[in-house]
Amino acid sequence: PVIAATANIVAEDLTFSYDFNDQRFDLVVVLGGDGSILQAARQMGMSQSPVLGINCGRLGFLAALSPDDFLSVWPEVMRGGSEVIDHIMIKVTVFRGGEAVADQLALNEVAILRGAPYRILDIDLYADGHLATRYRCDGLIIATPVGSTAHNLSAGGPILRRNLQAIVISPISPHTLTYRPVVDSAETVLELTVTEPYDSTSVVVDGRILSSLHAGDRVRVERADQTFKMLEVPGQNDYRTLRDKLGWGGSVNSKNAVD
Amino acid sequence: PVIAATANIVAEDLTFSYDFNDQRFDLVVVLGGDGSILQAARQMGMSQSPVLGINCGRLGFLAALSPDDFLSVWPEVMRGGSEVIDHIMIKVTVFRGGEAVADQLALNEVAILRGAPYRILDIDLYADGHLATRYRCDGLIIATPVGSTAHNLSAGGPILRRNLQAIVISPISPHTLTYRPVVDSAETVLELTVTEPYDSTSVVVDGRILSSLHAGDRVRVERADQTFKMLEVPGQNDYRTLRDKLGWGGSVNSKNAVD
Amino acid sequence: PVIAATANIVAEDLTFSYDFNDQRFDLVVVLGGDGSILQAARQMGMSQSPVLGINCGRLGFLAALSPDDFLSVWPEVMRGGSEVIDHIMIKVTVFRGGEAVADQLALNEVAILRGAPYRILDIDLYADGHLATRYRCDGLIIATPVGSTAHNLSAGGPILRRNLQAIVISPISPHTLTYRPVVDSAETVLELTVTEPYDSTSVVVDGRILSSLHAGDRVRVERADQTFKMLEVPGQNDYRTLRDKLGWGGSVNSKNAVD
Amino acid sequence: PVIAATANIVAEDLTFSYDFNDQRFDLVVVLGGDGSILQAARQMGMSQSPVLGINCGRLGFLAALSPDDFLSVWPEVMRGGSEVIDHIMIKVTVFRGGEAVADQLALNEVAILRGAPYRILDIDLYADGHLATRYRCDGLIIATPVGSTAHNLSAGGPILRRNLQAIVISPISPHTLTYRPVVDSAETVLELTVTEPYDSTSVVVDGRILSSLHAGDRVRVERADQTFKMLEVPGQNDYRTLRDKLGWGGSVNSKNAVD
Repeated sequence: PVIAATANIVAEDLTFSYDFNDQRFDLVVVLGGDGSILQAARQMGMSQSPVLGINCGRLGFLAALSPDDFLSVWPEVMRGGSEVIDHIMIKVTVFRGGEAVADQLALNEVAILRGAPYRILDIDLYADGHLATRYRCDGLIIATPVGSTAHNLSAGGPILRRNLQAIVISPISPHTLTYRPVVDSAETVLELTVTEPYDSTSVVVDGRILSSLHAGDRVRVERADQTFKMLEVPGQNDYRTLRDKLGWGGSVNSKNAVD
Repeated sequence: PVIAATANIVAEDLTFSYDFNDQRFDLVVVLGGDGSILQAARQMGMSQSPVLGINCGRLGFLAALSPDDFLSVWPEVMRGGSEVIDHIMIKVTVFRGGEAVADQLALNEVAILRGAPYRILDIDLYADGHLATRYRCDGLIIATPVGSTAHNLSAGGPILRRNLQAIVISPISPHTLTYRPVVDSAETVLELTVTEPYDSTSVVVDGRILSSLHAGDRVRVERADQTFKMLEVPGQNDYRTLRDKLGWGGSVNSKNAVD
Repeated sequence: PVIAATANIVAEDLTFSYDFNDQRFDLVVVLGGDGSILQAARQMGMSQSPVLGINCGRLGFLAALSPDDFLSVWPEVMRGGSEVIDHIMIKVTVFRGGEAVADQLALNEVAILRGAPYRILDIDLYADGHLATRYRCDGLIIATPVGSTAHNLSAGGPILRRNLQAIVISPISPHTLTYRPVVDSAETVLELTVTEPYDSTSVVVDGRILSSLHAGDRVRVERADQTFKMLEVPGQNDYRTLRDKLGWGGSVNSKNAVD
Repeated sequence: PVIAATANIVAEDLTFSYDFNDQRFDLVVVLGGDGSILQAARQMGMSQSPVLGINCGRLGFLAALSPDDFLSVWPEVMRGGSEVIDHIMIKVTVFRGGEAVADQLALNEVAILRGAPYRILDIDLYADGHLATRYRCDGLIIATPVGSTAHNLSAGGPILRRNLQAIVISPISPHTLTYRPVVDSAETVLELTVTEPYDSTSVVVDGRILSSLHAGDRVRVERADQTFKMLEVPGQNDYRTLRDKLGWGGSVNSKNAVD
């Protein structure tokens, strides 16, 4: 209602089924958590419009506005006083026999995950055409800065400031003690192959299976031409979000102090 | 041949199919890597006989003798000059509707692993009947001291000296930053339940799927009455094995030095 | 006052100066945080009496009772309904030229810490007389189970259940990627030497400098004959303390969730 | 001698005492390890000339050429066939009472380190003028991409590809479990203050104490105008260096394999 009074609503979509096709909008307002925003990014596909996320449950990294915050911010948004920030997305393409059999944009991360029978995977990583290393691991995550606080963080990866033109490569349970997450330039083109994939070894994009993985498949990961456009909200900044969302910082949440 | 000349060979088993049933032997010589020893422990089941592992490939944590080492050690073994060391094993039982539907001894570890569709698992851990915590994670590992250098180590867990009467509980990619591996007494009886398991969520023992996991299932993990008996080899000790096998220690393998 | 009404108070000590000498008491009530309890353990030295900690600030691992909790627990304590739990302590002795020049009991941990000029330390660790490894690091911590949630946890070490008869050895900023914390039996006698200590390289026990460290010095770390006796409080258990104190567990403190 | 035959040697410096002052050179050849190159960068100060490092001991991250490699690479260098790569440096300035009392360029990292009496430090981090967080820790490291494989890696930080325009902020033994290393843009201006520094609390640049730290001091860390110029050597690349130097990758150095 607040929105309707001040803006021209082109469409409402409560079932995650709207076909954005090649349309662009001034603003897409997403009600829901971070998962809803990932879903919106997926639906918009090749034509990303600016997004404003309102979170009705607990605050997220992407959906950072509470309904109350929204009401106070909305007039400013309508005056055009908010900046749209571009966040890098990565394009994931699965090649089989030289042909692209699946592709998708990722806002958070692409992961290669083993499933049953839960044997070790050998994943070869190529950077700009050169073999970088062979990971022996349970899986591998390549995350954007926005996605660095999601699965990458769980797997032991670092936090990337959102405006970085970079990606982070983090192995899951590496069977070699010398591995550490690597932060590489967003311009580097990465390719992944799995020597002996199992039946359920999969390429997973933003938490959804994109494709199973066969022997000989190549997964290309590169910076997308598209960016994820998020409306900048006054008073927000990356470090504050880390504090609020991760309990990052002893003075803010004394429960986590060790001493 | 060296063995035949000095000992009475009861059986040879090249296909991992020998039925140990309730028999006990003076010694079971395993040729092969750590995987073969895990397999032997599985075959012996409830009646564990002392094991001596000879490794034809690269040395393992369990199969620590090269064929050459074996030749020099064997006479001493036959003289009875070797000690048999007991290592704790854990007994894993899956209960469904109050009934035990699967059980097995674990030498290395028991793990609860999610598979496709790769969503977060909520795993409740009970210690001696009390809810200890709810892990939000990709999986959970409970390892013996012998198994602490296997999957547990990959997931970020600590190394346990082999003679400890303890187990270590390590979450895989926990979705909460405050988790750390916990080392508990081997006497503690642990129970695990998964609130909403997926189709391929499994209980995996020593790298093999024991059972799938349904909602309401309870997985009980407790110290086994049986122990894994390994022949003590002269000159071996835990720290030396760590150095040899993990490249543990800067002075031994300078390639791993950071500075 | 509540205490005076029901018990015979032998002494009050507000200045941390009471000389416990060889006296033993039925109970020592410590008002203050974990630091005060560490201090009390230090004062009692060789004759440890049972301790009950009341925390007037935020709850600690050792001083787990709030004043209110205390009032409800105290009658039960006086009835003798509380159990005294023994926690292992470690004895630290610094040898110089074959002679003991300093020793102390540790409740939490002993650490070797470099100071200025902040160069890398080479620390040799001997276990039961055998060289285990040479750490290249900024420092090394050997912690008891009770101390595992203190400095050890900050340095990346695991949590040890309090009743374990074990210690944990954790390097600080090891300059070799292959190191992991090691949990060893409390019966193992450890010795540490620093090849080239700097002026301010020190042996630190429970957060206080015990001694500086010279070339040739040996630091022996072994299980103490004494134990730290803590009054068991009804309703307390280790896992609950972890949840309350560390924010351990997603369901308890949703602020720390990653997803 | 090989160099003399083909190039005009302006100066030789065996004592690390040459005054580069404002001179620029076509090339500075450094014989020695990574420490020598750090020293050379320090000596060049505000006027950095391209550097080629030859390592007579074990290979380093910076001094990546063996003497033999050098001989085969040198003719190519003289033909001008080598590219000079710019690596970011950071400028560290210590302000006391509003006045700059010390400053220096860092090639690897700047660290705030506590010394005796080894109490916890409270370090406030400001990013572009806003308080980002208060670290309770033993110290804090801010590293360049080149320095990410030095002290930062020991403290648990990630590896940054060298050409990234980024820095990484890693706490040492943080007394809060929720901390993770943060990779920020090189354009961000960071400021650090220590609420209650101890006598030996110091600002350390590339392993050398720059200044002690008093209450009220501010340490500003920002991208330097100067870059460290390193001659690109054919056949070198970052991932290969990681493999050679860190034993990074299971297939290359099987000693580090876990399984």
